[in-house]
Amino acid sequence: MTSTDEARGTTSTEPVWWGWGPAVAHDPLPESVRLLLARLGIPSRPTPPVGLAEVRLPPARLPAAARDALAAIVGDRHVRGDDESRVRHCRGRSTTDLLRLRAGDASAAPDAVVLPADHDEVLAVLRLATRERVVVVPFGGGTSVVGGLAPTGQPGRPVIALDLARLDGLGRVDRESGTAELGAGLRGPRAEALLAEHGLTLGHVPQSWEYASIGGFAATRSSGQASGGYGRFDDLVVGLRVATPAGSWDLGRAPASAAGPDLRQLMLGSEGAFGVITQVVCRVRPLPARRLHEGWSVPDFVTGTRLLRTLAARDLRPTVCRLSDETETIAGLARPPRRRPAARDRAAQDDGPGGDATTGGCHLITGYEGPGPAVARRANEVAEVLLAGGARRLDADAGADWEQGRFRAPYLRDSLLDLGIFAETLETAGFWSALPALYAGVRGALVDTLGAAGLSPVVMCHISHLYETGASLYFTVVCGQGADPIGSWRAAKVAAGDAIVAAGGTITHHHAVGTEHRPWLGAEVGPLGEDVLRAVKRTLDPAGILNPGILVA
Amino acid sequence: MTSTDEARGTTSTEPVWWGWGPAVAHDPLPESVRLLLARLGIPSRPTPPVGLAEVRLPPARLPAAARDALAAIVGDRHVRGDDESRVRHCRGRSTTDLLRLRAGDASAAPDAVVLPADHDEVLAVLRLATRERVVVVPFGGGTSVVGGLAPTGQPGRPVIALDLARLDGLGRVDRESGTAELGAGLRGPRAEALLAEHGLTLGHVPQSWEYASIGGFAATRSSGQASGGYGRFDDLVVGLRVATPAGSWDLGRAPASAAGPDLRQLMLGSEGAFGVITQVVCRVRPLPARRLHEGWSVPDFVTGTRLLRTLAARDLRPTVCRLSDETETIAGLARPPRRRPAARDRAAQDDGPGGDATTGGCHLITGYEGPGPAVARRANEVAEVLLAGGARRLDADAGADWEQGRFRAPYLRDSLLDLGIFAETLETAGFWSALPALYAGVRGALVDTLGAAGLSPVVMCHISHLYETGASLYFTVVCGQGADPIGSWRAAKVAAGDAIVAAGGTITHHHAVGTEHRPWLGAEVGPLGEDVLRAVKRTLDPAGILNPGILVA
Repeated sequence: MTSTDEARGTTSTEPVWWGWGPAVAHDPLPESVRLLLARLGIPSRPTPPVGLAEVRLPPARLPAAARDALAAIVGDRHVRGDDESRVRHCRGRSTTDLLRLRAGDASAAPDAVVLPADHDEVLAVLRLATRERVVVVPFGGGTSVVGGLAPTGQPGRPVIALDLARLDGLGRVDRESGTAELGAGLRGPRAEALLAEHGLTLGHVPQSWEYASIGGFAATRSSGQASGGYGRFDDLVVGLRVATPAGSWDLGRAPASAAGPDLRQLMLGSEGAFGVITQVVCRVRPLPARRLHEGWSVPDFVTGTRLLRTLAARDLRPTVCRLSDETETIAGLARPPRRRPAARDRAAQDDGPGGDATTGGCHLITGYEGPGPAVARRANEVAEVLLAGGARRLDADAGADWEQGRFRAPYLRDSLLDLGIFAETLETAGFWSALPALYAGVRGALVDTLGAAGLSPVVMCHISHLYETGASLYFTVVCGQGADPIGSWRAAKVAAGDAIVAAGGTITHHHAVGTEHRPWLGAEVGPLGEDVLRAVKRTLDPAGILNPGILVA
Repeated sequence: MTSTDEARGTTSTEPVWWGWGPAVAHDPLPESVRLLLARLGIPSRPTPPVGLAEVRLPPARLPAAARDALAAIVGDRHVRGDDESRVRHCRGRSTTDLLRLRAGDASAAPDAVVLPADHDEVLAVLRLATRERVVVVPFGGGTSVVGGLAPTGQPGRPVIALDLARLDGLGRVDRESGTAELGAGLRGPRAEALLAEHGLTLGHVPQSWEYASIGGFAATRSSGQASGGYGRFDDLVVGLRVATPAGSWDLGRAPASAAGPDLRQLMLGSEGAFGVITQVVCRVRPLPARRLHEGWSVPDFVTGTRLLRTLAARDLRPTVCRLSDETETIAGLARPPRRRPAARDRAAQDDGPGGDATTGGCHLITGYEGPGPAVARRANEVAEVLLAGGARRLDADAGADWEQGRFRAPYLRDSLLDLGIFAETLETAGFWSALPALYAGVRGALVDTLGAAGLSPVVMCHISHLYETGASLYFTVVCGQGADPIGSWRAAKVAAGDAIVAAGGTITHHHAVGTEHRPWLGAEVGPLGEDVLRAVKRTLDPAGILNPGILVA
């Protein structure tokens, strides 16, 4: 695929503008996946993205005076109106975003990209934008999969993407309290590298980790693959610095407080609609001395879910825990298990070769991080529960394979799109008692809707975030594109969203609302909740310049 | 003390109107405490409360039409205007509240007490109150120690106390998810009794547990003595049902969500100013098979604090953990340790009789709840850290003594007030690195202010809630009353509040804001925070009938 890199507008390690990560990181689709797709009747045909020069951009609407005023704040070279900058800040990384971009549609591109250096510059930009009625889209990693970077409802106004990449510093590290001040523009790897110099880690590792930003994690209530050990990102936040059109706001004076409502929780999940998070004070932990990932096969998804519930109820959540359903196990997208059972359990095996998805069962990954003895002990405690519940340990490579491939899915999606195959995800969460109906409802909605459109969907699911009271469900859909993939997906998404609401789940567990989930926000928070969000918005952003249409209609 | 019960207006097991709990539960002050007070130069003189008949009440201002309309909603016998009902709903249970009541001042009494049966009746009352401009003070257990039941700023309007005692049902128990629906009016013991029938517990045990209510726990972000094991009350809340003047609001669809800000967190800590919490869906756990409380002596408060930080950092928090400073240890209010070291550690003791506060050191209580093996293991792990850090195990009675006396402090306060001695508490929390300055600042402010007033204060402190990033500090002050105890305490409280803000702590860790902490709320949440609270208030309570002056000026 590197042969077309130049046409695609990149030859560097910079992420490609039409997809995920640098071009060199895109492997051709594995032969096993090709065969599987063929067996499932999903048609493929080469569908490369257009060249950057062919991308259609609307004329930039930012008035020269506003541009100059912005340049006076952030410096001339930090106001960018070139085509590539605009394309690179156009929409996020949902599959429909990528389909549009790959087809050369950058109609939603901002008119300019502004890169402030610090909190005060952000404040100044917001003041100017308020005065000039310029729409501001806060931009962290640009990895939204829910249309969080595509504001709506202010068609006449110029739009700037406020790229926070320069707010990339590590501030005060308070070793005694176990906290660190992190610039909102820090991407996952850089944040971890800076903390590692102090022997510390954040431990927040969502699939978007390579590109998503600290501010984005906070603004979207992100949850990482290691949430069982480190917590959701909102659990990690102890303080926030926010620039709003109404002024500066610092939140978080103590680990816990009864001084009224926890207003940090209003900014966590605010998706750039209430203010721009410029710094996050996070809980940090010592770098783990040991990391261990193990693979298991459980008899079926229902049994596996019950086992996870037992672990959560007994306060035995692994750092990482991912249970694939039967379909995902077969598709092997969560790393297909090997044929050899681990030596230590071989004696206990009496059911043939085992461990291969094709023999039935569901694949489970458990991971542990921490001091060596604690990892060993927790792994043993979990193993005891799993073995007693009918799980079978897979060979040691299963865990290692998962770890190695944990960030690969978005690259794989690019490879599928190159073959004209549609792939997208959606997620929800619910209380344990609601999970079976939630799973069946969403799965059924996706299969039925896409099936009716003749797209032969493969619908897979895994559980990847455990709580005492429930868990998340993460669905992956792979199907043909048909004549109108964007329209087909929209219909499927509507059906899935309705099914989630009907089954009592949340419309999103960690992807956020954006424009994609906006239709169901009312069902989630009620009309009073929408009124409250509107009132907060009016208070902090009276001119409505921040991400209009996001959270507040 | 029971000889004056009749004059005090009660002969039953009902709480006394002038203090805490039933009259029969008030023991005379232990001789050891009397001696200690005398040694410290704190003067005492018998100061009994006035009789109920002598209490001065303002004329009731509720118009007859409004009374009748309320009776039409809740039933005639659930609208009460008799003197005793009004006195019993006058203010909360801060020491200054009690000083006023004991002196016969019920000037802040509501004009009537209204007892709705359910959520819909609460809604109807709020609609009526909005129409008639009647101030509504939501009333749970009446145990506020921060003036949360004494709204201000609407002097002309009639005031009703909305007593939620009849909302005392246990709703759906979802065993699979580990959640239960609890009526807001349930007091601590009744809630636990209902859950115990299902083999479940909430595990939320603040000192006010005997009288405080589920709705109050939520509205004030309460934290219980077992917070290290069960979490703060806000950690236990998965869903809320709220009646507001603007309508009904249900919150919480999943264990976790990224569907915008977590709006439950706006109602947690809303202190009756935004709406009336009528039902709380709580996380519940199996009744613990074993409870174990142990006593320790650590060399000093600084060393003890460091040990608690180590426990928190290693994820080894006991279910209960209370470290008294040197003064509290000496005063023995946290149960004085015995002279006999525990048999199992006797061999390791080589420093004399030990374990007695008078030989120096600080007293620490650790408690564990759960399955037997888990309790034993955790206790051992904690013991290892404590012993390595210079702690010495006290005899087994120390833990049992604490457990037995855990709810006694408010009764003891009544006994002190009977002797004309002032006793009050205040609390804060901060990050570990801020704790030493926070401790010194608050302690110094209290000692200096009350000392300057010639009141010979004894200022004691303990840490009782641990977090990875910090801890709470809970101060108890005992001193003479002097000529103007209310004025003297106000001055001390102002100095302490200023000291908290200066040292970077939160103005309240679990007592809430009320009227007492209102002056510092701006420092805590910033002017934008206050604007946001005001906007939320306007949205949910446009006529400003709910607890005016609380949270929003």
